[in-house]
Amino acid sequence: MGSNSLNPDRFFDPDPSIRRVARALYEETRALPIVSPHGHVDARVLAENAPFPEPGSLIVQPDHYILRLLYANGVPLEDLLKGDPRRVWQLFAEHYFLFRGTPTGAWLEYELHEVFGIRLSVSAETASRIYDQISEKLQSPEFRPRALFERFNIEVLATTDAATDSLEHHCAIRESGWKGRVIPTFRPDAQFKISSPEFDALGARDYSGLVRALAERRAYFKQLGATATDHGVLEPYTASLPEDEAERLFQRGRQGEATPDDDRRFTAHLLMEMARLSLADGLVMQIHAGALRDHNRAVFERFGPNMGGDIPVATEFTRNLRPLLNACGNDSRFTLVLFTLDESTYSRELAPLAGHYPAVRLGPPWWFHDSMEGMRRFRERTTETASIYKTAGFNDDTRAFCSIPARHDLARRMDANYLGGLVARHVIDESDARPMARALAYDLAKQTYHL
Amino acid sequence: MGSNSLNPDRFFDPDPSIRRVARALYEETRALPIVSPHGHVDARVLAENAPFPEPGSLIVQPDHYILRLLYANGVPLEDLLKGDPRRVWQLFAEHYFLFRGTPTGAWLEYELHEVFGIRLSVSAETASRIYDQISEKLQSPEFRPRALFERFNIEVLATTDAATDSLEHHCAIRESGWKGRVIPTFRPDAQFKISSPEFDALGARDYSGLVRALAERRAYFKQLGATATDHGVLEPYTASLPEDEAERLFQRGRQGEATPDDDRRFTAHLLMEMARLSLADGLVMQIHAGALRDHNRAVFERFGPNMGGDIPVATEFTRNLRPLLNACGNDSRFTLVLFTLDESTYSRELAPLAGHYPAVRLGPPWWFHDSMEGMRRFRERTTETASIYKTAGFNDDTRAFCSIPARHDLARRMDANYLGGLVARHVIDESDARPMARALAYDLAKQTYHL
Amino acid sequence: MGSNSLNPDRFFDPDPSIRRVARALYEETRALPIVSPHGHVDARVLAENAPFPEPGSLIVQPDHYILRLLYANGVPLEDLLKGDPRRVWQLFAEHYFLFRGTPTGAWLEYELHEVFGIRLSVSAETASRIYDQISEKLQSPEFRPRALFERFNIEVLATTDAATDSLEHHCAIRESGWKGRVIPTFRPDAQFKISSPEFDALGARDYSGLVRALAERRAYFKQLGATATDHGVLEPYTASLPEDEAERLFQRGRQGEATPDDDRRFTAHLLMEMARLSLADGLVMQIHAGALRDHNRAVFERFGPNMGGDIPVATEFTRNLRPLLNACGNDSRFTLVLFTLDESTYSRELAPLAGHYPAVRLGPPWWFHDSMEGMRRFRERTTETASIYKTAGFNDDTRAFCSIPARHDLARRMDANYLGGLVARHVIDESDARPMARALAYDLAKQTYHL
Repeated sequence: MGSNSLNPDRFFDPDPSIRRVARALYEETRALPIVSPHGHVDARVLAENAPFPEPGSLIVQPDHYILRLLYANGVPLEDLLKGDPRRVWQLFAEHYFLFRGTPTGAWLEYELHEVFGIRLSVSAETASRIYDQISEKLQSPEFRPRALFERFNIEVLATTDAATDSLEHHCAIRESGWKGRVIPTFRPDAQFKISSPEFDALGARDYSGLVRALAERRAYFKQLGATATDHGVLEPYTASLPEDEAERLFQRGRQGEATPDDDRRFTAHLLMEMARLSLADGLVMQIHAGALRDHNRAVFERFGPNMGGDIPVATEFTRNLRPLLNACGNDSRFTLVLFTLDESTYSRELAPLAGHYPAVRLGPPWWFHDSMEGMRRFRERTTETASIYKTAGFNDDTRAFCSIPARHDLARRMDANYLGGLVARHVIDESDARPMARALAYDLAKQTYHL
Repeated sequence: MGSNSLNPDRFFDPDPSIRRVARALYEETRALPIVSPHGHVDARVLAENAPFPEPGSLIVQPDHYILRLLYANGVPLEDLLKGDPRRVWQLFAEHYFLFRGTPTGAWLEYELHEVFGIRLSVSAETASRIYDQISEKLQSPEFRPRALFERFNIEVLATTDAATDSLEHHCAIRESGWKGRVIPTFRPDAQFKISSPEFDALGARDYSGLVRALAERRAYFKQLGATATDHGVLEPYTASLPEDEAERLFQRGRQGEATPDDDRRFTAHLLMEMARLSLADGLVMQIHAGALRDHNRAVFERFGPNMGGDIPVATEFTRNLRPLLNACGNDSRFTLVLFTLDESTYSRELAPLAGHYPAVRLGPPWWFHDSMEGMRRFRERTTETASIYKTAGFNDDTRAFCSIPARHDLARRMDANYLGGLVARHVIDESDARPMARALAYDLAKQTYHL
Repeated sequence: MGSNSLNPDRFFDPDPSIRRVARALYEETRALPIVSPHGHVDARVLAENAPFPEPGSLIVQPDHYILRLLYANGVPLEDLLKGDPRRVWQLFAEHYFLFRGTPTGAWLEYELHEVFGIRLSVSAETASRIYDQISEKLQSPEFRPRALFERFNIEVLATTDAATDSLEHHCAIRESGWKGRVIPTFRPDAQFKISSPEFDALGARDYSGLVRALAERRAYFKQLGATATDHGVLEPYTASLPEDEAERLFQRGRQGEATPDDDRRFTAHLLMEMARLSLADGLVMQIHAGALRDHNRAVFERFGPNMGGDIPVATEFTRNLRPLLNACGNDSRFTLVLFTLDESTYSRELAPLAGHYPAVRLGPPWWFHDSMEGMRRFRERTTETASIYKTAGFNDDTRAFCSIPARHDLARRMDANYLGGLVARHVIDESDARPMARALAYDLAKQTYHL
């Protein structure tokens, strides 16, 4: 992980016949524009286009992958989230060895080397010099967010936004005259969670009012460029409730009386409603299922969400999605992109679903699985049943703006390597592999998300 | 996938030391006769020995692997199942790229190249010419079913037949004097499903009458060469019920009053009865567990079953099979072959069960997992605990008669490659690998199924 | 598997660029002392230091991996456990081919070749000669247990002992003046199982008395060198019960009235108590979850436990461990080492838990998964999320004393090979890999278990 040398063949299998093809395929996709249809960059960054602050708050503090592993190895979160920025960076550098063999390590190497031109290896000794070098870069106009957006060759960047978001930053970007395409994604999680203090009924007084309000918000998002919605759920349970039951659950939510089971059923019903709205307004529907959020109560109470304390659970798709897919899954105008944290579902449930229902696409390996081995497992377990053509290309899913090119580069390399393996084993021809590599790097994301 | 060149090293790892051994082992098994102890070829085909019709109805329409992926990519099933045969073939050819990297693609390449001698790559442009070339071949006597059976070097072919089947085609084959060995397999699914309209009590008026009738039908099947039974269940739940409860459930089934839970318990009990009958009559018992059939109601209602709309579910074996294995699993005269669609059970449950109970064998990777990567995962996850000697060799499990040699060839290659990897890593010697390769390709299937 | 040649590159990937690095890394760890923090060697063996008996009772009869696979292939357990020792050895040798491709085969090769200097391949023909050669060796002073302990270069060996164990053999070892470090591990399973005839309340008359007695026994174990506890549970369910409920369950246990569900809840509560005691006394807490013990009733009734009849079940960690981790998981002074038989939890639950909670470490691949492929899967699925630094190094977990070096050698080779793969794919540098290899082979086990 010496950042002074970023090997041009990194992540490729060492077998010469695989590596040769992987390299050739990667060369064809390397420079394609970045399509980023799902992620968590804050639109404000691009609206304001202010210089990024120093390295600690740019690279360490917003990255729950980094915070998580440092915390797991005994570094107090206080020390990482508060205190002197240079000290935060120093702490990070002292523990940099922890990231050896992890995707975070791979992304950091790329980001430091390619984005910031750092030629030193990160260590306790070099921390301060690297801090200074990055800090200096961040002052220059070339390192302003929009300049980086252009340098990164981002064709389109989708953010993820609450249903209630004013989208003021998206408006500001549009009004600024800057040509960068930054679009919102409609994520109405707070409208689903009737048993939670976060529940937000959008001012509706009855269930049909809620659905109307959701449809209006969707229209507003669409007007600002949105092509997709996103839904974070513990389990992807779907079910059609009688209207009066939906109404009753909604009222219990408004009165703060809903139970977790009410919540589960209301969510199940509202997901079907969302699918129907998607059929009407054309927004692609995404479901991210299986994260038990805020597993660690003490960390949540002291530091809030997104501190690395979300832990996956086993997830069931076959039975849970049956009602929704029976209602809308045969309609090619509808697109449902599924994400899982339970890799055992790849070959057992997800690939068979995507390999049958016209509406279903498989989202790329998500979160913990957005990694070298995770990508390999995803392709090995889904391609044979669903083909690459029922997958959704790559999502970087990142909050860390400067890591975007690193993540796409890694995905392009891993996909090139996967296809290189198929060629070397004579499963496909090299001439077949070329359009497949391009599809995985670019076409499928655009097509899936109507971009 | 250019069908004009079928690489002699296809599916082998590119590493020279693995490939050398894989090639050598494959050379020793390549020409062994085909033993096909489980599949879905229609015995009528071999009884009547009529020429196959044109390519669309031979290759595309009966293959739910093909239908499924075309449908998933937006091709209406109507267009594939009805209409002009040449148009069906054209549609298939236009979407042939979807099969790149899938086992269906690999089988098709073999079938077109080796069975039909096609030297053109399939595409929209070549579709019509290929259609004509295959059509012409199908007219010749060498392409009649029995001639192909002999050319394929099939030593024995087991069909799968309802308990009520008259087996007239099996009789006709025997009476014809043709020497091809085609045997039935006893599959009494309709006798298990008391909550379904398909329930068929074989005319019995009480539970013991049903068991007697089943035993009689087994004897009839055995007389026509059957050596095995097969049971398709959602979950492999087994349990001994008191006789009066079995009787009560049976009567509810007869009266159309049984619930899904009744069905589950009745099935659990009847599976144990089947194991006992197997101990008595020597028929090998197969359980195929974990497919939720006809997930897509609309497709099922319009087009019937086997259209690619069956989706796997997570499956539990350890607790579910305990009653049956405690009753019969220690008896070496009994053989139970287990099949799963849930790969997470390979190393967790199935290999430990097969590595302990004398009666248990692991069926080969099934359905979605009957693929290059699926076979690799199966061997990697079962051999270390169960050894290859508690697996059942290969099953082609196909409805598509002309794909039989393609499937066995692929399995022999993948097993040779797996063993080649063990040799290259010095886990086993090449001299050990040779009998292992033969066992996987031929001996184990014969031994497991008493063929 | 010809034992006359133990290939120096065994288990390494054949790719030259991986093999070169793997070999170099292995060379650096090969001769490191063995740290064995979890296993099942009987301390009596080292206390008495008597010569081992003949090969059958040394190698075959105590090894449930061997018994299991022979039994599964039709060899009656009677023949293996009783009767003429030479005949037991002969039976084993006749079935030696079953172990091809299994870790047992790999361990046996090493043990025969390196420990006993056997140069013949095991077979029906050579069985008797090998038997004689080993028997002869066993008579010599160099093959007494303590001499082997020293020759194996064991720095510390932890046994596993019931809470009621007098630890007389551990005392005897200390008093003997022999310098070998053999320490006990506190395993109070019988104090948890209130619904079982094995339940043992340590003489306590109420729940708080039980906890006091457990604390006292822990102190006694600690005095004799113990640094860890161990808990075998079907599921890792944890929950805090009100004191009066714990008391009620305890009394039901004493009166033989506890149900399996009582047992489950009592165990859940007592696990939390153990975590709190660990925080107080510093003993590392191990949980081995997911084995359904004595699945085969007939074998259990005739031959007792540990005959290979334990079968894993799907295991849930995320929800089950939440109460315990919320109570103690943020405290770096506490160490909880988790073991699973359900590989689907590696990437889904265990790596995320270890990658977040300071207290959590992942135990090495356990039992059925303590194998070449099992180790590969473990590293591939945990490193990217948890890093190698949240894993616990290697445990040999063996009852078979003479297999200890074989097992550590295999683990060191597989870890060197894993790291070699990372180097060859330029994920890490070779200079990074060296301390990582050493950590996996030696440092992490010492650090995790405070040895």
